[in-house]
Amino acid sequence: MNRRQFLGGAILIGSVAAADGTSAAVALSPASQGSAPLPFHGKHQAGITTPAQSRLLFASCDVLTNDRQELIGVLQEWTSAARRMTEGRPVGTDNTDQDAPPDDTGEADGLGPAALTVTFGLGASLFDKPGDPFTIVARKPAALVAMPTFAGDELDPARSDGELAVQACAEDPTVCFHAIRNLTRIERGVVALRWSQSGFGRTSSTDTAQTTPRNLMGFKDGTNNLVAEDTAALERHVWVGASDDPAWMRGGSYLVTRRIRMLLEVWDRSTLADQEATIGRVKGNGAPLTSTKEHDAVHLSATRAGEPVIPARAHIRLAAPEENDGTRLLRRGYSFTDGIDPVTDQLDAGLFFVAYQRDPRTGFIRVQERLRTDALNEYIRHTSTAMFACPPGVDPGGYVGETLFA
Amino acid sequence: MNRRQFLGGAILIGSVAAADGTSAAVALSPASQGSAPLPFHGKHQAGITTPAQSRLLFASCDVLTNDRQELIGVLQEWTSAARRMTEGRPVGTDNTDQDAPPDDTGEADGLGPAALTVTFGLGASLFDKPGDPFTIVARKPAALVAMPTFAGDELDPARSDGELAVQACAEDPTVCFHAIRNLTRIERGVVALRWSQSGFGRTSSTDTAQTTPRNLMGFKDGTNNLVAEDTAALERHVWVGASDDPAWMRGGSYLVTRRIRMLLEVWDRSTLADQEATIGRVKGNGAPLTSTKEHDAVHLSATRAGEPVIPARAHIRLAAPEENDGTRLLRRGYSFTDGIDPVTDQLDAGLFFVAYQRDPRTGFIRVQERLRTDALNEYIRHTSTAMFACPPGVDPGGYVGETLFA
Repeated sequence: MNRRQFLGGAILIGSVAAADGTSAAVALSPASQGSAPLPFHGKHQAGITTPAQSRLLFASCDVLTNDRQELIGVLQEWTSAARRMTEGRPVGTDNTDQDAPPDDTGEADGLGPAALTVTFGLGASLFDKPGDPFTIVARKPAALVAMPTFAGDELDPARSDGELAVQACAEDPTVCFHAIRNLTRIERGVVALRWSQSGFGRTSSTDTAQTTPRNLMGFKDGTNNLVAEDTAALERHVWVGASDDPAWMRGGSYLVTRRIRMLLEVWDRSTLADQEATIGRVKGNGAPLTSTKEHDAVHLSATRAGEPVIPARAHIRLAAPEENDGTRLLRRGYSFTDGIDPVTDQLDAGLFFVAYQRDPRTGFIRVQERLRTDALNEYIRHTSTAMFACPPGVDPGGYVGETLFA
Repeated sequence: MNRRQFLGGAILIGSVAAADGTSAAVALSPASQGSAPLPFHGKHQAGITTPAQSRLLFASCDVLTNDRQELIGVLQEWTSAARRMTEGRPVGTDNTDQDAPPDDTGEADGLGPAALTVTFGLGASLFDKPGDPFTIVARKPAALVAMPTFAGDELDPARSDGELAVQACAEDPTVCFHAIRNLTRIERGVVALRWSQSGFGRTSSTDTAQTTPRNLMGFKDGTNNLVAEDTAALERHVWVGASDDPAWMRGGSYLVTRRIRMLLEVWDRSTLADQEATIGRVKGNGAPLTSTKEHDAVHLSATRAGEPVIPARAHIRLAAPEENDGTRLLRRGYSFTDGIDPVTDQLDAGLFFVAYQRDPRTGFIRVQERLRTDALNEYIRHTSTAMFACPPGVDPGGYVGETLFA
């Protein structure tokens, strides 16, 4: 091994989750060019309980065709391309014909799988198209409701909603970019990009082997998140169940995204006491204010001098399952920064919130209603919202969405 | 080592460059929380010949004060904070006082140095301020000229130029964000953010130990870039020399940034032959069209059937030192993606070009004039431009820019 080889590759150690939610530790050598591929096939789509990768590129698209077969074709071709890219292969097989554009755009050549997962979702507007061109309105999930208006909403319709969603997560942002670019490219004229969002640092763990990351407020985030190992909780809170309707969504999940701008200049001027009272945790180690260690149980009923130790409007109180009929979400959000806000001259930055649940009405919406009085609302604005039905996973011969069109 | 410890840390192997341009291989353990710090002090600022890290956040700022001492204070405080952050420490010492805002915003706590470098530059407009409030106009470098207009310019003034530049490069984008955020935060009211740019994948190597990356056109980029090991070439092309004026810039360098939007939808429709003729290299392995291996010499004079093998308008021909009086630049650019272009509905993405040189008039400007007929111009648009004088490096007691104010 010469110096170039020694320095050229990074040895990555990560954990790999099978699509059924089990996970296994793997050590990856430089020879693997980044990482071993994650499984694409399984009962559930990858990218939901998969240990949250460090990078995200999310794209929301609209469909330009009114032809049912053409829409099916999109989902088939996307599934095929995602399967290949997950394995670190180019999207097509012809990349050497001099007289044709290469099938693959090439920027991820040599980067390997990089733990890529590609997760697809279907938005309410796909089902609501005038005239029901795809003959799917009768199969629209009741869970795919219009999102209520919440405190702190400053939603930009141009970067909200959408008919098809693609979530690309990987350890290398170039691999994420390559996935979104190539998926939209192969459907040019049939599917149009509506909005996209880059995420640069995961703000949740989805596996007990992951350390809890910090969000841009400087606090550890997602300490009590649902994790891949807790399969009973996933069955209850994340996966559409065997008796849930519609049948085509069984094994799938509902995705809610919210682009949450943080008013960091205001936050940064508040005292440590204010910040910790707002969240309900110690900033340094993430412990609940009632305790000393991050993973200690949160004692919502604890009082000191007659006052609750975790204040009435603290974020972790209002978001707690105990305060929300036991509701839990699987969060896999990312930090973002998108340049300078022209009004405030501050960094336009925050949390791209991503959550999966069995039913948004009893999931995100239930909790978000409760957060109307959240002390955190003073420091955040929601600038984008979207909700998608993510179909179940597929076998090697199938395509994502096939249960809808069967 | 339990499973959490085993999986929680990534073993990174990288190369570390001293500020004098030498570099050394280091293997970093999980216990180092990301990586060992890069040197902050030296003859030159870090972040120029430092092996290009994988992530960038670049910020351009304007100065709100007209007080010379206050401007000096900004540079002193920025130097002090950058020194601390480079070592993986918080920007200030008081992060536990409950009744005050923490000195550090906290999001990088636990991420370690992550190979952070922070590089500062001074824009022409700082010297040109009406009334010369800082008493520096007489010391303005002649090299800091107004940028000519070039082919393909579609420049947005709101994200061009600026009085102070901060280039934060690291292996972790959260560490880059933390650096820019905290530097602007500690000067709130004195310095205002003007524009920023995130970069997600380096598009140049600045060290022979690094593998050549690909840009978003799918081609290997920067094969013949200047590298840290070639100290003679750096002295000639990058560092302001011992006999160059002004004296305060000796040991420094001039920085040019260009946000180059790639018209990827057009590029992706062109044939492989067109793409390779446009660049002058083989897409697959990066070899010049006159040869078979990436690092083979480029034979500009080679012909086939009477035509030059590397076409007359090929990018590598027009950018070659032989075609530009021997001019060479140290490039350390990054890929970017900034959402969807509302006009084309395509990903707004491309190359954030970053180059260091001894004199922009005989550096970037010289080459860019030559690129007026570049075949690549059909596929790119320059949307931002900026130029900065980056002062020399400092000792532990100094501050970046001290030679200007001495």
